[in-house]
Amino acid sequence: MVKMNKTLNIAIIGLGQVGIYLYNELKLKKKDIENKTGRKIKIVAISAKNKNKKRSFKIDKKIFYSNPLKILDEKKIDILFEVVGLSDGVSKRIVEGALKKKIHVITPNKALVAKYGDYLANLAEKNKVNFEFEASVAGGIPILRTIKEGLATNKINKVYGILNGTTNYILSEMENSNQSFNKVLRKAQSLGYAEPIDPKLDLNGFDAFAKVRILSALSFNNKISKNKCIMEGIENIDLKDINIAGQLGLRIKLLGICEIKDNKLFETVHPCLVSKNSYIGNVNGVMNAVILEGKPIGESVLQGEGAGPGPTSSSLLSDLLSILRGNIKKPFGVSSSKRKKIENFNNNNYTNSLYLRFEVKDKPGVLSSITNNLAKHKISIQRIIQTPDKKNKRATIVIITHKTSELNSKNCLNLLKKNKNITKYPILIRLYN
Amino acid sequence: MVKMNKTLNIAIIGLGQVGIYLYNELKLKKKDIENKTGRKIKIVAISAKNKNKKRSFKIDKKIFYSNPLKILDEKKIDILFEVVGLSDGVSKRIVEGALKKKIHVITPNKALVAKYGDYLANLAEKNKVNFEFEASVAGGIPILRTIKEGLATNKINKVYGILNGTTNYILSEMENSNQSFNKVLRKAQSLGYAEPIDPKLDLNGFDAFAKVRILSALSFNNKISKNKCIMEGIENIDLKDINIAGQLGLRIKLLGICEIKDNKLFETVHPCLVSKNSYIGNVNGVMNAVILEGKPIGESVLQGEGAGPGPTSSSLLSDLLSILRGNIKKPFGVSSSKRKKIENFNNNNYTNSLYLRFEVKDKPGVLSSITNNLAKHKISIQRIIQTPDKKNKRATIVIITHKTSELNSKNCLNLLKKNKNITKYPILIRLYN
Repeated sequence: MVKMNKTLNIAIIGLGQVGIYLYNELKLKKKDIENKTGRKIKIVAISAKNKNKKRSFKIDKKIFYSNPLKILDEKKIDILFEVVGLSDGVSKRIVEGALKKKIHVITPNKALVAKYGDYLANLAEKNKVNFEFEASVAGGIPILRTIKEGLATNKINKVYGILNGTTNYILSEMENSNQSFNKVLRKAQSLGYAEPIDPKLDLNGFDAFAKVRILSALSFNNKISKNKCIMEGIENIDLKDINIAGQLGLRIKLLGICEIKDNKLFETVHPCLVSKNSYIGNVNGVMNAVILEGKPIGESVLQGEGAGPGPTSSSLLSDLLSILRGNIKKPFGVSSSKRKKIENFNNNNYTNSLYLRFEVKDKPGVLSSITNNLAKHKISIQRIIQTPDKKNKRATIVIITHKTSELNSKNCLNLLKKNKNITKYPILIRLYN
Repeated sequence: MVKMNKTLNIAIIGLGQVGIYLYNELKLKKKDIENKTGRKIKIVAISAKNKNKKRSFKIDKKIFYSNPLKILDEKKIDILFEVVGLSDGVSKRIVEGALKKKIHVITPNKALVAKYGDYLANLAEKNKVNFEFEASVAGGIPILRTIKEGLATNKINKVYGILNGTTNYILSEMENSNQSFNKVLRKAQSLGYAEPIDPKLDLNGFDAFAKVRILSALSFNNKISKNKCIMEGIENIDLKDINIAGQLGLRIKLLGICEIKDNKLFETVHPCLVSKNSYIGNVNGVMNAVILEGKPIGESVLQGEGAGPGPTSSSLLSDLLSILRGNIKKPFGVSSSKRKKIENFNNNNYTNSLYLRFEVKDKPGVLSSITNNLAKHKISIQRIIQTPDKKNKRATIVIITHKTSELNSKNCLNLLKKNKNITKYPILIRLYN
């Protein structure tokens, strides 16, 4: 490590929950950081939209900028934290501008990395500075560092897990409290576990999917994929399905999965039925967990708090320390020129056992028309549970199938859609293999 | 990172199971390592006791040395792997000699690090080379790197877990197969999970304890402690206790624990009763798991294969890549001068609920003499299970106590030892809090 007495100048762009927590941590841990790295740091610029907003920690208004881009022109910055969190706009402009000026950048912004990660990594390499984003996946769990460094020479063939704390909290809480999705969502919002205004990006799987893209790029040394993938969220998960799953010894989890299948890249996010006795079935609440399968390491598990300013700050500071210790590193572990494109696995060939729930009119012949249709599409049945609702002349039919491909199930369900005795488009949840 | 075209010379000392696997991996992954680090490596010297022993991979006899110390005199080495595994002797001499000659050293040798880690780290710092020992704790799980880097600015206050795969396999297998300790030990030996000749250091907790010492030094920035601690292994765990525990919804695990209690350092290894529903209660077989509690990170879990040449090699190579990427680092994360001594927590004040099993003569008054004695030592009872064995006029009494200190339980059991109606010195297993 090069000994330098020069104090390093730091800028923080974004003073939301995470930004303000980070600001405070940096002040509190100044001495500790100096002990660990031999380098002094100083926050010389901060930026947010509103200078006078009420914040949980006091800020130094003398170093406040409303326009973050001005900082790059007016101040000598060594390390910049981008904690605005947009996939484009000012987030992209400030990161781009900083890297071009040979400023190290640290960010928890998964949307930005998933969208522009290749371009920004290339920019960082060219300018010989770091672009670090440990906090973008699984909060405080140092999963990216583990893949890039701890498991560097392993051949990883699969990474999967619970990558979104909001949805995991909602699923757990629906089960525990026996309350509907909408009720639990409002509770999650009031507790700060879900975005108060627009929680869509968590609920529809987009957030988890950005993390899958980053994990797969790091694990398989591929360029961030732009392929069309199966991405489903939890908005359509009904309390009824959670309860039926429970009776079957199963639990619903939103899993993010990336895998090399037949030398091709497969990435997906969708709800899965997992055994209540499995490890992943017992990661509840806001916890995140990532499971890696590699050679020679075998199966490794990392679990921890996936969100919140504390865990996120922990990861942001680990990136800072890595930079202060003088490690100039490739953002994706290997240089951009060595990262390849991997052909996409055909989603139609993705196979799973399926949980299908049909709400039907209680008439003779309905079940047989469903089972005939399944048979026609070569989908064989493992288990059927039919629950009549005599009063309303309705019935619920739950079918667990043997393994079948996406193509078969899509074709089959499209036909069944037209069946007038089925009152609601069938619910489909894949069983995790 | 400094670009240098020079090939780095590597020596491997020790060609046992791990050494020979590593030798093969280095050959196989040469190109991958070059891609990831931009550095070329070459194995220029290997050493073991016996040149002609049968090994699972072919070695290059032209670079073989019977006396490893000769390598330091005769060859220009940049990086040396010590995989002999002794706490003293040739292991210490070769590591010491290498560091003095400004050779980076990588080792999985926990016994050496636990005994001489402070001295060797100091030596490495003075000579500005790396002394890396990721593989010394929890096999392939990159736990040390996670503490030193991923969680660098967290205040860690407790680290505990299952740190020894041999004992965890034995305990799991006793439960699953309902077989005695000795039978299962022989099975573990035949499968290569336990040392064939002298498995003592695994069974008596010594191996796990060395890992606790290393974890606590890294987590709390203290010098490796030399304090006397509670160290118990699994040699006295009886199938009977496993079965009774099972009936109570509990499972026995050998836990290593280090913790800051009242600003003092507490380190221990002993069997614990944990809930069958807890995370740690479901880490079975040869798996290792480490749980960290810190601020602001919260609770983090790392789980993976704890032993075997594959996982160990994975960690050894992660250390190699870290060196090749040009990261000169303090072996314990901070410089030796910044590491302090922490006063020892008084073991007598360690408190737990206890599981006590007494084998007694089935006579009136025996139970009351036990409970009186407990009461005298202020140990209150949560639960009693008495099982008579009429034929032999014996009985088994199991008592679960409320929390009590080591001092109280020691005093109480010493008195009960003298009770002639108790036929066997009571079994004591602590419940994990």
